[in-house]
Amino acid sequence: MREAPPPTAAWQPGDPVGHRQFFRMAVDRPLALDGGGRLRDVTLAYETWGELNAAGTNAVLVCHAWTGDSHVYGSIGNGHPSSGWWEGVVGPGLSIDIDRHFVVCVNVLGGCQGSTGPASPHPDDGRPYGSRFPVITVRDMVRTEASFANHLGIERWLSVIGGSMGGMQALEWGITYPHRVASLVLVATCAQASAQQIALGAVGRRAIRLDPNWRGGDYYDAEPGGGPHEGLIVARQLAQIMFRTDDVFTSRFGREFADRQEGFGLWQRFEVERYLDHHGDKLVRRFDANSYLLISKAMDLHDVKRGRGDLKAALSRLTMPVRTIGIWSDVLYPSYQQREITETLVSLGLRSDYVEIDSAQGHDAFLIDTDQVNAAIGPFLDQVAKQ
Amino acid sequence: MREAPPPTAAWQPGDPVGHRQFFRMAVDRPLALDGGGRLRDVTLAYETWGELNAAGTNAVLVCHAWTGDSHVYGSIGNGHPSSGWWEGVVGPGLSIDIDRHFVVCVNVLGGCQGSTGPASPHPDDGRPYGSRFPVITVRDMVRTEASFANHLGIERWLSVIGGSMGGMQALEWGITYPHRVASLVLVATCAQASAQQIALGAVGRRAIRLDPNWRGGDYYDAEPGGGPHEGLIVARQLAQIMFRTDDVFTSRFGREFADRQEGFGLWQRFEVERYLDHHGDKLVRRFDANSYLLISKAMDLHDVKRGRGDLKAALSRLTMPVRTIGIWSDVLYPSYQQREITETLVSLGLRSDYVEIDSAQGHDAFLIDTDQVNAAIGPFLDQVAKQ
Repeated sequence: MREAPPPTAAWQPGDPVGHRQFFRMAVDRPLALDGGGRLRDVTLAYETWGELNAAGTNAVLVCHAWTGDSHVYGSIGNGHPSSGWWEGVVGPGLSIDIDRHFVVCVNVLGGCQGSTGPASPHPDDGRPYGSRFPVITVRDMVRTEASFANHLGIERWLSVIGGSMGGMQALEWGITYPHRVASLVLVATCAQASAQQIALGAVGRRAIRLDPNWRGGDYYDAEPGGGPHEGLIVARQLAQIMFRTDDVFTSRFGREFADRQEGFGLWQRFEVERYLDHHGDKLVRRFDANSYLLISKAMDLHDVKRGRGDLKAALSRLTMPVRTIGIWSDVLYPSYQQREITETLVSLGLRSDYVEIDSAQGHDAFLIDTDQVNAAIGPFLDQVAKQ
Repeated sequence: MREAPPPTAAWQPGDPVGHRQFFRMAVDRPLALDGGGRLRDVTLAYETWGELNAAGTNAVLVCHAWTGDSHVYGSIGNGHPSSGWWEGVVGPGLSIDIDRHFVVCVNVLGGCQGSTGPASPHPDDGRPYGSRFPVITVRDMVRTEASFANHLGIERWLSVIGGSMGGMQALEWGITYPHRVASLVLVATCAQASAQQIALGAVGRRAIRLDPNWRGGDYYDAEPGGGPHEGLIVARQLAQIMFRTDDVFTSRFGREFADRQEGFGLWQRFEVERYLDHHGDKLVRRFDANSYLLISKAMDLHDVKRGRGDLKAALSRLTMPVRTIGIWSDVLYPSYQQREITETLVSLGLRSDYVEIDSAQGHDAFLIDTDQVNAAIGPFLDQVAKQ
């Protein structure tokens, strides 16, 4: 039997740093957040691969999704709770080529793998922020990433690339800092969270809140096993269903039972339930429940139109080529959301095209069908690099 | 402010009976259940409208879905926590015509509106069953409905009709008692729960189990407000998302905020969240959490193939005309599930056709777009009656 997980799986100062590096910001004056809150003494954990060329033209920023982190490439262990989350796309000779590109990935503000988030020590008292951590938005994430880019000496990214919430960040990068972005690749993402996406996020958040071990967000001093694991598992399981499709579940699990017994029991599991349990149990061992809540809310609040007029007005700020990539079987970020971005850009006379991944895997296809993702990203980056 | 709801909204002996009647069964010997459990002294609550004709050929059994009850027609109040759940389809002059048909609806075994369920007194000690209530299946529901039909003197139904779980019951009626059913109308239902349907059910059940007020199922002596309402709300909200569609939520709610405030808060709601809260709050005032769990599990266990070979072998028992009705926008019971039934029947040389409701409302269209449902049911019933 595995040991009971600690109340949070967040990376903590003193843990092995692994491949991480750290950037400290907002030390002298606080960072004013979109939601009205403030944060000071903010750390961003990041990783880089490859070398920045002399002209500074080969830097690619890869932005991670909900439960991702900076470890887009590399092995598990030494402080990294999971192996590179986009290993089939980022690596030597792949479309995001660490032999040719200077690849950078930042753990988002509010995350739990080295960047400042709810599990981090509050500068006032050194105790975890917990319920004191303010709401953040995707724009806040991008604002901190821009400060970090300054620190790194990156004037302009060859491309900012991301899937799902990573694509939200990439799109905000292009809109907020068009002069600093030579191209965008937006995978299985949207210009604004839809009502259904908000609804699904809200139910997951409410499941975490329902867990008595969540304690209003201040659970960090609990004993092992005493964190809001059940709530996080329920929230993750709901998300996991939406990350895949009816077809996938039918062909993989059908109606097979996982737990054999005489007769039927209320908690007897089908195989698909064992699969969901596996995914839930895995997440509580690598992610913090408060970060999950916070990032979920940031996605719901994602709307490039906010404060900028309508979608056309917001997207008219883009000056770089934009490739959008969709998956026909994606029920969580349906392909109309990516096509909407490209169609709006084209209607504005801007350069954009839409490429569809032909996969029945659903939203997760961008992590699974990496051959098609490479085919969609590689030639596009080469073309941008030549311009 | 409304009063805190009692720990269960189940109908209890002593409450106003309203339009209900009761049938008592399994008094002398227990009912052996599919799942291995036993129940004795079982009550079924039912309602009827219209008159059985002299030839006994105009009886229509309407089977209810997950959180339905026997009140398919009629007003709210006098012991009925909601108005008739299919009022646009069942009524004078409608396709299920209480002026011409003898319409019967039974609250399912395990339900909470008068039939024996987890909130009912256990015959041994008079205390609620709670966690002692055994797992039931759709076949168990149908078996008790058949005993009830004997009691009522119905030898043969003109039609057994149901949507969603009601359709599961109707299909099992046809397979188990083909000589007693002259036709079936199966709306937005399936021959077996899919892995995705099981997954969604499982997450909802786990949300209820997560609620500390569920207390392993023995919460009936809690104070008002002390029942597992939060868990039931989360489960219901998840289901409610699947009952509708992305399009519906976008057009009804978009990204409007329900709670205005300065800045953004973690629990600040969008309009779609207020809608989900409304549906959740409504359910806890009319439904019992244990019944919700039990019926959810019964749906997951629904599989007409169990013990009967493959789908062809199971459906080959049907001898009556079968109309299946689907909704193209239904993401929970996709129309391939209804077409599969009709296609299998046709391949067996049996009489079946499929009619599609042209509605963007999703699964709930069978409760909303009643004009189309009437058009799909009325002529079919008239034709069956003439045979």
